[in-house]
Amino acid sequence: MKKIGILGGGQLGRMFIQNALNYPVEIHILDPNPEAPCSKIAHRFVVGDFNNELDVLNFAKNVDIVGIEIEHVNLSALKKLKKLGKTIIPDPEVLEIIQDKGIQKDFYLNHDIATAPLKDKNNLPNVQKLKKGGYDGKGVQLLSAENFENCWGEDSIFEEQADILMELAVLVAQNQSGETAVYPVVEQVFNPEYNLLDYLISPARIDEETAQQAKDLALKVVKKLNSPGIFAIELFLNHDGSLWVNETAPRVHNSGHTTIEGNFCSQFDMMLRTLLDFPLGNPEAKLKSAMFNLIGASGYTGKAKIQGLEKILNLPGHSLHWYGKKMTKPGRKMGHSTVVAQDWDGVIQQIETIKKEVKIISE
Amino acid sequence: MKKIGILGGGQLGRMFIQNALNYPVEIHILDPNPEAPCSKIAHRFVVGDFNNELDVLNFAKNVDIVGIEIEHVNLSALKKLKKLGKTIIPDPEVLEIIQDKGIQKDFYLNHDIATAPLKDKNNLPNVQKLKKGGYDGKGVQLLSAENFENCWGEDSIFEEQADILMELAVLVAQNQSGETAVYPVVEQVFNPEYNLLDYLISPARIDEETAQQAKDLALKVVKKLNSPGIFAIELFLNHDGSLWVNETAPRVHNSGHTTIEGNFCSQFDMMLRTLLDFPLGNPEAKLKSAMFNLIGASGYTGKAKIQGLEKILNLPGHSLHWYGKKMTKPGRKMGHSTVVAQDWDGVIQQIETIKKEVKIISE
Repeated sequence: MKKIGILGGGQLGRMFIQNALNYPVEIHILDPNPEAPCSKIAHRFVVGDFNNELDVLNFAKNVDIVGIEIEHVNLSALKKLKKLGKTIIPDPEVLEIIQDKGIQKDFYLNHDIATAPLKDKNNLPNVQKLKKGGYDGKGVQLLSAENFENCWGEDSIFEEQADILMELAVLVAQNQSGETAVYPVVEQVFNPEYNLLDYLISPARIDEETAQQAKDLALKVVKKLNSPGIFAIELFLNHDGSLWVNETAPRVHNSGHTTIEGNFCSQFDMMLRTLLDFPLGNPEAKLKSAMFNLIGASGYTGKAKIQGLEKILNLPGHSLHWYGKKMTKPGRKMGHSTVVAQDWDGVIQQIETIKKEVKIISE
Repeated sequence: MKKIGILGGGQLGRMFIQNALNYPVEIHILDPNPEAPCSKIAHRFVVGDFNNELDVLNFAKNVDIVGIEIEHVNLSALKKLKKLGKTIIPDPEVLEIIQDKGIQKDFYLNHDIATAPLKDKNNLPNVQKLKKGGYDGKGVQLLSAENFENCWGEDSIFEEQADILMELAVLVAQNQSGETAVYPVVEQVFNPEYNLLDYLISPARIDEETAQQAKDLALKVVKKLNSPGIFAIELFLNHDGSLWVNETAPRVHNSGHTTIEGNFCSQFDMMLRTLLDFPLGNPEAKLKSAMFNLIGASGYTGKAKIQGLEKILNLPGHSLHWYGKKMTKPGRKMGHSTVVAQDWDGVIQQIETIKKEVKIISE
């Protein structure tokens, strides 16, 4: 039986394991937090730092294939493991491109992949992005003449601000044989308070031509990255109809969560297939779907509790995904709700009920 | 956080846990086999005998609610626990009816629930059913003048042989508030070699009126049992159009497996809702679905291996459910494959491919 080792044991790893239990495979997890969402359900859970070279090397000794659920992992270990013949998915070279937003931007520009043009730091307004360490909207800010004194000192890129009509995302999987599968385009609606995804609609409410262009652009990114794995390509649809790649996550992604209930093959099943070099699954949608992030409410820190859960459990197409994190704090992703329906109205109505009724508080 | 204790740690428990991980709840399991399918993923896994009074009493001390994934469990312990105020689902009284096929038959007859009439042992042909210990078609035989010498000596009932056109099943859930949910009728096709379910089609290919009658009959069984829980009512559709209740399982059931991918609320999610006294979910079908049991092939005993898996992974609506059992033997349920599609042809074609390509062998 194949042994897959995953760097990171958060909610993405947890949902990956929930599905991987359907296959004859062992899942091993490396995470520094002994209470991480994967800790109780991995075949083997190793407490260790995926950013530490030795921890990663030791962990990988006992597995056949190494995958990730977070991109900020120790590269030098993965490169050594690759040299030793271990299968690493995605390729460490891809992680090197993704981990640094400067290198990532150069990659898009060098391969003629449409993206926001770079600007000079002093050419305002512009968008500052820290080259390293940003996640979930952190490490990005809009700079103008009025707030230029807030400009961060760390290594950054500065780019033109997109004239955003809609934020889109496309998941693309590529297996070890080079076969690809492209999911329907999804539409992301952001929560302005935390700059986290508020809710997501799949497929996006855009015309077919724009959808095809978005899928082509996402597929081009993955073809140029030239690595097996599953990738989430986040795109801006600008008011003039142009599409820009914002950034790429080399892993399963928040924007793909509705694929569990809404699509024939979920992103987690697709990830497993890329790791095991299986034929890819069917990315198409069974129904319309939407997803709402359950985020720790402002003013509540402590043992988490879902307020209003019973009020949404009888929605006709609702599924809860609680991540098993004990403690909530403002802005922390504690779970998500997915809804499915035959049409967009059906999913949006359910999302509105969830937004109204549910709140993540502390006991 | 509520603690649910489940008696039994087989594949039903495993699929229950896979879904329960989506909720803020702890799942504790009691099973005599330290390598049972639930052993690696339960919050707490206790090695012990669910038929032993003391084992059940000790196990239940640390949980709030007791459920089952097998009906052959120690009744006396459950009755004591109920007296002490513990929530037991289903009611121990229901298990008492179900565990003995004589009592179960009397229950149907006393409540005017259509079922095969009892016959005298010597009035041949008839169907002999052992009162206790039968499962998966074991403990049932057709007696005729030719084979009457095979008549078992153990306590049995003898009933009229149904004139079967089709075997059907209906899942019904009832929560602690008496709310009920009835799933679409499913059609069971049996493997004559092992008398195990070969494949299952959901919804059944029957007219609406028959479907409604089957659902009404199943609901009547559950209303008369008068207990919360989830129940699988197996029915014979006779050639004359009449419906007879064959037997009732007071738990999630093989005939409900396609609800994971095919229905809005899976039987495992519905079970959890009955245990937590949540509003019930939506039992309706998203799509047509079918399920094929992956059964250990004749002539293979040892470490299990799926032959032909790669040939079915690219079917457009296929999902594998491997139960994590190490050893295969002829007739052992090792997993199942579910397929979904827009129409019945779409599911049957995929089932035919699976039947042709896949075989559970040993290494």
